[in-house]
Amino acid sequence: MITVFTDSSPNGFKVTIALEELGLPYTLEQINLHAGEQRQSSFLAINPHGRIPVLRDEQTGVTLFESSAILLYLAEKTGRLLPEALTARWEAIKWLQFHSASMGPILGQRVHFELFAPTRLREAIDRYRSLSEEAFATLDRHLSSRVFLAGDSYSIADIATFGWTHIAVICGFGFEHHRHLTRWHDAVARRPAVGRGVMLPAPATGP
Amino acid sequence: MITVFTDSSPNGFKVTIALEELGLPYTLEQINLHAGEQRQSSFLAINPHGRIPVLRDEQTGVTLFESSAILLYLAEKTGRLLPEALTARWEAIKWLQFHSASMGPILGQRVHFELFAPTRLREAIDRYRSLSEEAFATLDRHLSSRVFLAGDSYSIADIATFGWTHIAVICGFGFEHHRHLTRWHDAVARRPAVGRGVMLPAPATGP
Repeated sequence: MITVFTDSSPNGFKVTIALEELGLPYTLEQINLHAGEQRQSSFLAINPHGRIPVLRDEQTGVTLFESSAILLYLAEKTGRLLPEALTARWEAIKWLQFHSASMGPILGQRVHFELFAPTRLREAIDRYRSLSEEAFATLDRHLSSRVFLAGDSYSIADIATFGWTHIAVICGFGFEHHRHLTRWHDAVARRPAVGRGVMLPAPATGP
Repeated sequence: MITVFTDSSPNGFKVTIALEELGLPYTLEQINLHAGEQRQSSFLAINPHGRIPVLRDEQTGVTLFESSAILLYLAEKTGRLLPEALTARWEAIKWLQFHSASMGPILGQRVHFELFAPTRLREAIDRYRSLSEEAFATLDRHLSSRVFLAGDSYSIADIATFGWTHIAVICGFGFEHHRHLTRWHDAVARRPAVGRGVMLPAPATGP
């Protein structure tokens, strides 16, 4: 049995979306971030960095944190959501990594400085607006000639990227001027497993 | 033949270190970041986001950007630098992803606000000092009971993490109060392939 420790957040939704898409049985344990449960010793024992999501697979004994590691693991475990052909497979992993290193962290910093920082730092807000716009533009160009990030088939790269475009919409970080990215986002949003995944453990409420 | 497009930077060094460790033949093409060569159309054709490193493998037709994707590819191509046993393999991938999503981007933002930003923003500097110290502390605790990040064997997780601890030392972002992390860093630094990798295409000069 798989257990997912998560809360309503972009990184958590990536894992619930993937599990719903794959139809794998799993148990969801909510870690209440507002209550600071991610800093309790029982949680730090499974992720010493104190972040959700964490996945534990009792069948294999593997416990993972970092949403991209979890997505790669679920794809390898099931043989799904990652193309088999060599070039398409690495295309998916490349855009998964683009998301985890170049897009997700930038949007995370934008959320902090634009919505939560006690002081409104104009230079920091402008920096992360500009960098997130650059990431959106890169995705838009890439999607101008492809249905999904790795080509014709839906993959963990799409799930990871959607985790954050979903939150960008909720936070008012618009990208509707990028029509290919918008078309892709809307198509992913219509998938039933995505609709279920972004409700677990509860919908994101925004700032 | 493998071609690497890179410049002296933490993300570039990860790839040259791995190629030197693996002893794979490759050609190095310097993309001069100071001269803005990463924004030229010939480079944007291989990475539309305009960042180094990029790896092209003519044998397979795969072209990759994002250093973690490149490291995973080289490990899969050679069957080296990633443990075979299931738990150790996912331990390596987990810490590789910790580096690419949670440590590298934070250190990158710290470099910007502490060393390069035109305005000295106290709150932003404090934020990234605190977050990078938290990442160092997490790594230190993890390494208190292991030789390398995935256990007994040196892996792409160590190479990725060293790419940024190497730059942290050069930038004066000290972590010597974390003795396990320091012991690990010094041991990795002594590997001959690491010594060669951080000189390609030229040593980092710091701020």
